[in-house]
Amino acid sequence: MSALKVPDIVVGRLPLYLRSLSKMGQEGKEITSSQELGGRLGISSAQIRKDLSQFGEFGKQGTGYNISFLADQIKKILHVDRVWDVILVGAGDLGHAVANYAGFVHRGFKIVAIYDNDQSKIGEEVSGFTVRNVNELMIDIQSGSVRVAMLAVPAGQAQEVSDTLVEAGIKSILCYAPISLKVPTDVYVQYIDPVLHLQHMTYYLE
Amino acid sequence: MSALKVPDIVVGRLPLYLRSLSKMGQEGKEITSSQELGGRLGISSAQIRKDLSQFGEFGKQGTGYNISFLADQIKKILHVDRVWDVILVGAGDLGHAVANYAGFVHRGFKIVAIYDNDQSKIGEEVSGFTVRNVNELMIDIQSGSVRVAMLAVPAGQAQEVSDTLVEAGIKSILCYAPISLKVPTDVYVQYIDPVLHLQHMTYYLE
Repeated sequence: MSALKVPDIVVGRLPLYLRSLSKMGQEGKEITSSQELGGRLGISSAQIRKDLSQFGEFGKQGTGYNISFLADQIKKILHVDRVWDVILVGAGDLGHAVANYAGFVHRGFKIVAIYDNDQSKIGEEVSGFTVRNVNELMIDIQSGSVRVAMLAVPAGQAQEVSDTLVEAGIKSILCYAPISLKVPTDVYVQYIDPVLHLQHMTYYLE
Repeated sequence: MSALKVPDIVVGRLPLYLRSLSKMGQEGKEITSSQELGGRLGISSAQIRKDLSQFGEFGKQGTGYNISFLADQIKKILHVDRVWDVILVGAGDLGHAVANYAGFVHRGFKIVAIYDNDQSKIGEEVSGFTVRNVNELMIDIQSGSVRVAMLAVPAGQAQEVSDTLVEAGIKSILCYAPISLKVPTDVYVQYIDPVLHLQHMTYYLE
């Protein structure tokens, strides 16, 4: 995108900004400020202005940000001005919950297939999908254009499945298992780790 | 803790530092540097030194950080040098997955009870717990010292359950539902939002 590499930590804040802006939009607001956005997110207004300035000029001094415009710009930067096909591996309790999660809609992601290696789960209907055999994953992905996967398998199986995903051409993996995946440098991994959030909050508890 | 309020965004990075330090410890390492820690986390070494300096002096110039010492200090700062009792509300697919999540161990949290409002789930055994009626939650919590809750109920029920939790004295809520809870200012809420992670990664995909 840009000649200057933006720090990953700044990139990671853009989805937070986008979520807040979308919320404001739903509330019927049209204009916001870095102060208001910062107040909602617990981030200083200076930090928000500095973060956004890495990607361009999105507001005029003194008039604030047009919410819809800024949200659209952030969507473009994050490449979620389109819809990404996502596969889900794991059709256990967690897989069911992820498949039924209502928060993906209008945010750039659509589950297109669900896989498992458990014969008792293969063929089962989950959230409108027939669970497929994980062995078919390689052929399915290579014949399509899926580059995003969610991994909802037990920790003991996560690395093996991750290897298969990488081999099949997946470039970003959201991992729900409490382990650190080993992947090549051109594959991105993020983790759902509830403890990070719990520890963040206990800081404020005595 | 300190007279100067540390920005929330800095507090939010401490659990990341702690997780990396614990991982390094498990790998048998004893000493690290802000460069190494930053490399693992995609955060600049300057940012890490600045963040840590808000809480004290944890390393000597040129010799790096003692991993075990720094981890212990961060645990104290985050108040996870103890174990917090946590209740889980919601015994559906997601509740089952959260109850069975192996990542809580040795990180400061222990589930002590699971609740649901569905008669078909109450009495069920989940991960060693008998699911209790959510109506009993108020009495259970008030008679104990639980201040942390995880909310794994459908979005349509999350606010009502959250109100009950707050009334019962819960001060921090980890919410898995894709909604924004309304809580008093002395109650902390964090959200598990997989889309934030997915959007972070698609930034790097073309």
